[in-house]
Amino acid sequence: MCELLAMSANVPTDICFSFTGLMQRGGNTGPHKDGWGVTFYEGKGCRSFKDPMPSAHSPIARLVTEYPIKSEAVICHIRQANSGAVCLENTHPFTRQMWGKNWTYAHNGQLKDFIETVPVKLHLPVGTTDSEHAFCWILDQLHYQFGDQQPEACELFTFIAGLSERINQYGVFNVIITDGESLFAFCSNNLHWITRRAPFGRASLIDAEMLVDFQQETGDRDIVTVIATQPLTEDETWHKMSPGQWQLFCLGESIACGQMQVAETSEAK
Amino acid sequence: MCELLAMSANVPTDICFSFTGLMQRGGNTGPHKDGWGVTFYEGKGCRSFKDPMPSAHSPIARLVTEYPIKSEAVICHIRQANSGAVCLENTHPFTRQMWGKNWTYAHNGQLKDFIETVPVKLHLPVGTTDSEHAFCWILDQLHYQFGDQQPEACELFTFIAGLSERINQYGVFNVIITDGESLFAFCSNNLHWITRRAPFGRASLIDAEMLVDFQQETGDRDIVTVIATQPLTEDETWHKMSPGQWQLFCLGESIACGQMQVAETSEAK
Repeated sequence: MCELLAMSANVPTDICFSFTGLMQRGGNTGPHKDGWGVTFYEGKGCRSFKDPMPSAHSPIARLVTEYPIKSEAVICHIRQANSGAVCLENTHPFTRQMWGKNWTYAHNGQLKDFIETVPVKLHLPVGTTDSEHAFCWILDQLHYQFGDQQPEACELFTFIAGLSERINQYGVFNVIITDGESLFAFCSNNLHWITRRAPFGRASLIDAEMLVDFQQETGDRDIVTVIATQPLTEDETWHKMSPGQWQLFCLGESIACGQMQVAETSEAK
Repeated sequence: MCELLAMSANVPTDICFSFTGLMQRGGNTGPHKDGWGVTFYEGKGCRSFKDPMPSAHSPIARLVTEYPIKSEAVICHIRQANSGAVCLENTHPFTRQMWGKNWTYAHNGQLKDFIETVPVKLHLPVGTTDSEHAFCWILDQLHYQFGDQQPEACELFTFIAGLSERINQYGVFNVIITDGESLFAFCSNNLHWITRRAPFGRASLIDAEMLVDFQQETGDRDIVTVIATQPLTEDETWHKMSPGQWQLFCLGESIACGQMQVAETSEAK
């Protein structure tokens, strides 16, 4: 369907290693060939690289693997289209501004009848995906609930977890959302995460012949969490999230989590 | 101060030639070394490439010159900071969503006391520039004036010309705004444009040793308008806009223009 990748770190960290693994799944080791995108936060600013062509063959994706952009929060997405044509306006991640911040969102899954039955009013989609429609609906609800003032992170993301559970009733809604400080993940049926900290070890990518010794690449106090649809390395133990589970990360650490009641789907879509 | 570059075309066209000239002014032939950005529209979607480092030395800028992205509307900006630190959130162009479209904006100039005296309410800046503040103020005013419905282009951009004239009273406000279809330019003191169509000729860049024969690069029916702070070629005749003049382009053609009353500034800032 699609694959998600995200990172939260306590020091600006590049995602070249993980992205090198993920991009192979966009037309090489995986079928997610209908575009890809990545959004890097640097302070309050963010920048995205996007292409509606397969990541495995994209010159822009190659630049991202070779040019180490250091960031404390990153969201990536590679797409296998099911709702909406293959085009730039349907390519994740989606970024919008609210409360003087950049909010970035990427979704894996499919929502049945969501666009048709759940209207949006204040935030209108540019493209035609169920994913962007759901993002706009979330922003509408945040405005109705909190008005002009952003609440503190735990209150905000507990509310977003409730919205995610409601959207999830329409199908499969694995989602990652960030404002560059907090990184929120909701698992519908398929999300894994790992936190790396001292003592660091080595890891090999599953999708490419690449080994990294994190000991050489990091400082003693670095804490880096990576979230992905499927584990990207073969010699580390990833946490598998359960359906309805959500996690909130900040500066690489898990700072809150919860479990929503969901009907388990019969298979990983 | 800063330099602007924009393009409107009736067929998807790359901007590699003009961008190659412009990027030299970011730390090489010009002093605009405090970041750069470019936004390409492809259909309703758009993608930006940005870097807070000088364009003349940016690997991402080099990619943009070498990877021909075909677009019908483009806005570029290279920055020489005067309001707001050199960082990603202060790097133009700025893109926000309204009426189900991506709106992109870039500004050249400086506004005195604008942030302090002209409040924004619905659209809050992420960064600290007078430029982004002015963009947010324009979006606020569009919402107050037109509500949920985007008016037709001439009514909309005539209204934006009036807003531009009001902002211009605070200093220098050369600006380019697009929704991917219409491309609007308001001249405070420094903007030039040229429309290329058959019979096409040759042109040489002022800022780099590069000659292009547009006859070889284009079709007979292609119409391409380029707008820039200063002419980019030495063997073509560019239209110099007068203070207070605005132009609206669509598919490469000038479709409307007007003249606002402004106090002429004593020098090109």
